[in-house]
Formats: sequence, C-alpha cells, structure tokens
Amino acid sequence: MTSILVVGSLAYDDVRTPVDAREMVLGGAASYFAMAASRYAPVRLVGVVGDDFREADVVRLAARKVDLAGLERRKGRSFRWTGVYDFVNDTAETVNTDLGVFGDWRPTVPSAFADSDYVFLANIHPEIQLATLEQIRKPKVVALDTMNYWIEHARDQLVEVMKRVDVVSINEGEARQLCETFKIAKAAREILALGPRVLVVKRGEHGATLYTKDAAFYAPAFPLEETVDPTGAGDTFAGGLLGYLAEHGGEDGSATLRRAVLHGAVCASFAVERFSVDGIEAATREAIERRYEMLLELMAV
Amino acid sequence: MTSILVVGSLAYDDVRTPVDAREMVLGGAASYFAMAASRYAPVRLVGVVGDDFREADVVRLAARKVDLAGLERRKGRSFRWTGVYDFVNDTAETVNTDLGVFGDWRPTVPSAFADSDYVFLANIHPEIQLATLEQIRKPKVVALDTMNYWIEHARDQLVEVMKRVDVVSINEGEARQLCETFKIAKAAREILALGPRVLVVKRGEHGATLYTKDAAFYAPAFPLEETVDPTGAGDTFAGGLLGYLAEHGGEDGSATLRRAVLHGAVCASFAVERFSVDGIEAATREAIERRYEMLLELMAV
Repeated sequence: MTSILVVGSLAYDDVRTPVDAREMVLGGAASYFAMAASRYAPVRLVGVVGDDFREADVVRLAARKVDLAGLERRKGRSFRWTGVYDFVNDTAETVNTDLGVFGDWRPTVPSAFADSDYVFLANIHPEIQLATLEQIRKPKVVALDTMNYWIEHARDQLVEVMKRVDVVSINEGEARQLCETFKIAKAAREILALGPRVLVVKRGEHGATLYTKDAAFYAPAFPLEETVDPTGAGDTFAGGLLGYLAEHGGEDGSATLRRAVLHGAVCASFAVERFSVDGIEAATREAIERRYEMLLELMAV
Repeated sequence: MTSILVVGSLAYDDVRTPVDAREMVLGGAASYFAMAASRYAPVRLVGVVGDDFREADVVRLAARKVDLAGLERRKGRSFRWTGVYDFVNDTAETVNTDLGVFGDWRPTVPSAFADSDYVFLANIHPEIQLATLEQIRKPKVVALDTMNYWIEHARDQLVEVMKRVDVVSINEGEARQLCETFKIAKAAREILALGPRVLVVKRGEHGATLYTKDAAFYAPAFPLEETVDPTGAGDTFAGGLLGYLAEHGGEDGSATLRRAVLHGAVCASFAVERFSVDGIEAATREAIERRYEMLLELMAV
C-alpha cells in the first residue's frame, strides 16, 4: 500500500495565545503532519527526540498507525520551542528556540522506508532536505516546506532543493521574500520556473492558493469562530494535502490536486481549534469529510 | 427599466503609489461606483462638485449614460483627497482631505430619481445616509458603505442606518472594529443580526466574503500581476455587485448574489490596474465577462 514518509521535527512547545497558554505540549512539524496524513494513508516518520520525550506521546503517534521505525532517541533534550501569538497584529513571536538533539541531527531514512512514494520534507536546513531526498529511491511526489530563516541564510541551497521536488508549500510572506516581489502571482511564476510542478501558497485565515504551470486555484480557509492556537497549521495542511494525494495515488489530475488543497485546509482548521496536535488528533475522517462538504458549499457559484 | 441610484462623493485625488503618482485625477466613491454599475444597468447619480470641476469629467460620466440630473454644482472647491499607498505594509495614508463643497452638502434626491429600485449609499455621515434613504420611495435593494471614522464617531447612527438597509459592504478591519472582535465570522453574525440580509466583507487582495443568515460564500480577488492604484476598489466592487443584482432584478436567490459578488471582484480588478477611474472606465462588458469566467475557473473543484 502507498506510504507517506515525513522527515522533520518532533518538539515540545510552550505556547501562549490570546485564548490561553500551554507548556511542554507535543509539537513539531512531523507530529502535526503525521496526525493529519495518517487519516488518509499509512505514515512513516523519520525524526529525533531526546530522553525527555514522553512515552505517552510515542503511543499517541503509534495509535495512529504511524510507523516509528525512523524515530531516533538520543541522549539530551528534545527540540523545545516557545512562542507567543498576537491575533490582532497577526504575528507569531518566537521567544525561545532550543534545538536540543535536533540541532546536529542528520536524518537516516531506514532502508524499509526507501521505497516511499509520497514524501514530505518538513522545515529544516535545505542541505539536510537534499541529503534526505537522496536516500529515497523513486518517490512519486516530494513536497517541501521551509521558513524565512533559510530564505535569508541558505537561499542557494533552498533553490537547489526546490528544483528537485514536486510540491513547494510556503506561506505568502516567504513567497514574497524568496522572489523579492510583493505580487504573489509573479512570485508563483518564478518559483514554478525553478522546477516544481505545484506551488501552494498558504495565506493563513485567508486560505491557500494552488499554482501549477497552467492554472491556479483559490481555496478558502475553513471559517472558524475561534482560533485557539495556530501552531502547526501549515504542517497539518501539508498532511491533509499529501494524505489525499496518496490516497488517490492513481489520479494525478488537476481536480485531485484541488481537492487535496481543500483537505489540507480542512485539516488545518482542526489543528488550530485546539492547542498542540489535540485538534487534528481528535478529528475523525468523517468529521474531515463533513467540513470538506461545507467548504465546497462556501465556494459553489 | 431598473435604475441604480448612487449617492456619494465626486472628488479630485492626488495619489502616490509605489508604481507612480497622479495629481487632480477623477475620484470619489460615486465616480467609481457609476463607472462600474453603468456596465450593467442605467445609473442615476446624486453628488456635488465645485466650480473647479472639469467639464471633461462630466462628459466621461455622461458618456456612460449616467443620469447627472442629481449632480449639484456649487461655488467653491470640489472634494480633494491626497493619499499615499504602501503596498508592502498594505497601508493607505491620507495626507490631506479638503472636503470643499462636499463638507456641508445634504443630498437632495430629484423627484425623478425617487422611484429607484437599487440604491448605493456611499461613504458619508450615517445621518446623511439615513436622510437620503428617506427620500427614496420603495427601493428593492439598498446597499451601504462606510468607513472607520463613522464607526468611531457616529457608531449609534451608523447602526441605525444599517438596520434599514439590505446590503452592508465594509472591509475586514471595519467589521472587526465595529464588532470589537477579531473573528470575522463572529462579526458577520452580529452585523446580520442588526437587520441587513446581506453582508459583504471586503478583504482586499484576498477577495471578499458574502454572508447571509444561512450561508457564506468566499470570492477570491481576481489575481493581478500588478496593482497600480487601489483607490476606489471598494466602490467599484459595490458597482459591479449592485449592477449585477439590478440586471438580474427578478432573481433574488443565493446564486445571483454569489455571482454578483464575483462581478464586484472583477470590476475592482479593473479599477486597481490603472490610476483614477481609468481602469474601470475602459473595461468593456466583454472584458468583464472574460475575467468572470477566469474567476470561475480559479474556484472550480
């Protein structure tokens, strides 16, 4: 059966939002991604945690049938991230980052995972993304996420890895920064010219836009009356998107891609409704489908 | 035949954007609205200008078959607005406002206009909007625009007039400010509870959202590679929206409303492509239809 491989961080987050605050809750790109994608297809995870990582959190991932054969446990601290959100000014401030064992980690893809068809390279140094990609035999779809830090400090390497992937998933601000233009449509053309078939520009509460060489597609965000914690929204989005693509592996048409983006938006809506991975962890496939249908109604002309 | 009445400002604008600058160009809510709405149905205009108003600009409006029987010409200066746009920070700074003859103007709706079916009350003191509305016999659809200034300084009167109209068209920031909530979905419910059947929340380059009691509809903005001058986008949007509704007067269903919002988005896209009303003035109905079809493709699942 088609498997999805995710390579990225598992973390403990201290998060404060206007709604409330949490300490030492499960976070990290790979956690969010896996919780979402596993609603669609089996997920394989490659990551690293320290000896402070709680067995209960391993169990939560295992309960979603996430294959943890690629989870390294090392002496030291797990990745810790401390952040504060301001919803009015739409900002996320990183108060502290303690990379812990994640800092000098170089992912090793277990040989049993090398045949993965769908791959998500979560945010990490682009050189590491490239080195990881080279350990995978013949993936059908490789998706990449990144962050402003790498655009500023490792731009050339980032462009190199972008040339090698199928799907680039970045947020609006990053697209502008990468292409040094205010206009997203222009940035999209430049990024697609590098090589990826698909670009997804995430626009937070405004949704996401899918760009391919020939077309674009505007997906609204699923409307929520309250956002509790935006952490992990992008990675959860990627999980829904890649999960849906993997589930519909045969079809590679535009309609599948569009539906996949909407599934990403729906998964992200569950993630931000609660702290940590709690929201997406609790979302059944039936609940996802219900929101998907509601999203279609919001777009019907 | 169904007529659309617009009551609002005609102005001369000095505008500077990152692209270029213009001085003394035709602006004002009524000008933008009329240029758009007249592509759909006959437009009647009630406004005021000073003795500096150029005959050439009267001719431009008349050329669009805008009925100018309600255009007062007074001794004094026309409304002047000076603004600077910053696209990166997404701000519009008003450098100077000189109300001129618009300052103490109280609109008089000519008796020949009192039977208008579709009415747009452009941004002005809500008490004046209400006094204007009382001069119109039995309108089918009344739409209202406003601005942050009236939310701050005439909130009670604004709420009173909102109770009396069918369509409220405001931007995202104004909706938040009016309802003192960050969440647009919550603000939308509160505004609809006041009385209007329809709320349109304009989100700039992110499009617009239509809210009714039972449903919502997300309209993307028409994607442009370059915005030249955002002035008048909201009023042009209202022109396309009300124009489409007037043209399809018989049907009052949800589908008509949704299509009307898309027409508003398309008209706004023409407006922002050039300075002043030049963009929407040059847009043929055929060009509008082409963009409308393209917008549908951007939303098709």
